[in-house]
Amino acid sequence: MNEQGKPTLAVVGATGAVGSVMLGILSTREDVWGRIKLVASARSAGTVLQVRGEDVTVEELTPEVFDGVDVAMFDVPDEISKEWAPVAAAHGAVVVDNSGAFRMDPEVPLVVPEVNPAQVANRPKGIISNPNCTTLTMMDALGALHAGWELTELVVSSYQAASGAGQPGVDRLRAEVSAVAGEDVGSRVGDVRRLIHDKVGDDSPFPAPLALNVVPWAGSLKDDGWSSEEIKVRDESRKILGIPDLKVSATCVRVPVVTTHSLVVHATFRKEITVDAARQALIEAPSVVVLDDPASSEWPTPADVVGLDPTFVGRMRQALDFPNTIELFVCGDNLRKGAALNTAQIAELVCAELMSKA
Amino acid sequence: MNEQGKPTLAVVGATGAVGSVMLGILSTREDVWGRIKLVASARSAGTVLQVRGEDVTVEELTPEVFDGVDVAMFDVPDEISKEWAPVAAAHGAVVVDNSGAFRMDPEVPLVVPEVNPAQVANRPKGIISNPNCTTLTMMDALGALHAGWELTELVVSSYQAASGAGQPGVDRLRAEVSAVAGEDVGSRVGDVRRLIHDKVGDDSPFPAPLALNVVPWAGSLKDDGWSSEEIKVRDESRKILGIPDLKVSATCVRVPVVTTHSLVVHATFRKEITVDAARQALIEAPSVVVLDDPASSEWPTPADVVGLDPTFVGRMRQALDFPNTIELFVCGDNLRKGAALNTAQIAELVCAELMSKA
Repeated sequence: MNEQGKPTLAVVGATGAVGSVMLGILSTREDVWGRIKLVASARSAGTVLQVRGEDVTVEELTPEVFDGVDVAMFDVPDEISKEWAPVAAAHGAVVVDNSGAFRMDPEVPLVVPEVNPAQVANRPKGIISNPNCTTLTMMDALGALHAGWELTELVVSSYQAASGAGQPGVDRLRAEVSAVAGEDVGSRVGDVRRLIHDKVGDDSPFPAPLALNVVPWAGSLKDDGWSSEEIKVRDESRKILGIPDLKVSATCVRVPVVTTHSLVVHATFRKEITVDAARQALIEAPSVVVLDDPASSEWPTPADVVGLDPTFVGRMRQALDFPNTIELFVCGDNLRKGAALNTAQIAELVCAELMSKA
Repeated sequence: MNEQGKPTLAVVGATGAVGSVMLGILSTREDVWGRIKLVASARSAGTVLQVRGEDVTVEELTPEVFDGVDVAMFDVPDEISKEWAPVAAAHGAVVVDNSGAFRMDPEVPLVVPEVNPAQVANRPKGIISNPNCTTLTMMDALGALHAGWELTELVVSSYQAASGAGQPGVDRLRAEVSAVAGEDVGSRVGDVRRLIHDKVGDDSPFPAPLALNVVPWAGSLKDDGWSSEEIKVRDESRKILGIPDLKVSATCVRVPVVTTHSLVVHATFRKEITVDAARQALIEAPSVVVLDDPASSEWPTPADVVGLDPTFVGRMRQALDFPNTIELFVCGDNLRKGAALNTAQIAELVCAELMSKA
């Protein structure tokens, strides 16, 4: 805490794709923090970044960096979080972790502030997890609908952006798009793959070409052919919404979009639901914007909502053949609500709690 | 018929995106046809195109052009088919129409040769319809599974290619990709749209930018917010598979891919189905190729299967929470099996029938 009683925040992973967005978010939201420390690997330490209009020098990730830190946000790979989040917690910081390391730990809450804010207090390990970006894309909207109609089943297909794989994902997509631009490719088998191989090589965070293509894979291989991303959508949706027996089938597909995930959602409820009532509930949800007038070509697309905070919902339809079922097309910025923004919101809940106790 | 008793074929719409693919298909499949006439609008008449290695001059679409024609394939817009298919039929040609004009007419069969070939004979109007490309992408695979397990429910999301909107769609996607190549766009709201507006203008067959974007719309607006493409998937799947009460929810989304539609399919069956048995049934289906080994990054992507005839299936998974349900990722060339190839196959069935009667 500083002299005004404002908590000290550490941003671990400040130089990554999500970290960069986080600095922008911290610079524009209500200024609840005392000191903000920026932390990264030894390689990035010494870099000077701007946050809240001030230059801040990035410090190296060490145990001592957490001395005096009240809240530590982690935007780093799973294995770094697994090692360092407990270190930060042992130094007295409340950790808000955006990795997958702790999300399904029963002693770690998984929080979406619009859905289950009270869970931040249940943190015996001093760690709170931020959900996976794909799951987060639909949680605000589904939380609002579940509150009214009791969600029972979800069938989800994703259209996931390159930045879900971090800055290397964005750089790779841009290099591939430049490689295919102006070329007569995409009509003959493998010509996109050959051109990209020849022009930019095969070193990619994606397991297949992404420019002029879609790739039905995200994450690592789990049991029975499921990808880790698909299992996360199932497990995390159940935990956040508090529906242990929620039926979920997700298929995760990467698309050549820089940032903003889109989801097609087929959602079934226990109670009778109409599309008009569901639309009204989403209009009233503070963090959801409904763009849904196809007669005027009004629906969300990733390019039109990237960089914005809300969850955008369109293409709302009453399922014609499935009772109590609504179809939705949902877009959300995977680096903002899908990562940095939700992490910042969780940290702000902790901040308010610390200040109320101080 | 020519002197060898081979029927005369007319290809109406020979200069369009599907027509061009059709000429290639007619040049490589078994040479069952006598004369092949190429027909197009007055604007394109006189153009010389190659088919079966020979130069053929495109003739203008007139009633007389169908004199002596045994089979006429139509790859033209709905309104042209609606006017001219009956004219061709009245001149004695059996029409195989790839437009949406007659597909749901109870007196017009809707045929996928691998699924319901016998239907070609039930053509009181002398017209046979070829299904919509999005529906066709999954029909061979679903037909094979329905034969074994009785399909009851389908939840489908599409990842549709630009060439579904014809050559103007391909040209527009290429122009947009060139406009965004090398530019730092896709992270700020509307920057892709502004750049494309400035560089290539707003005259597009798509209702939103497609480069670095996905667009949740294909076709025209139908009742209650559904798109015509989504309704076609429902109605045509029911008619082709002969399941009038099949439950279907489809959401159709355009993606920045030149050619080959992809579908995420959540398919539920009346009988108990295992993913291993389903995979075996698809392996045995002559027109389906299973690419399904995620441990080796093996699954179909549009760029890797475009230009090929089969339906490609991967990401086969047993639904974890839904009984008798299989998840699939299906890719098919929307200009080949999705249009020209299936039309050619139907025409060949008619050709065989005519020759057997001759």
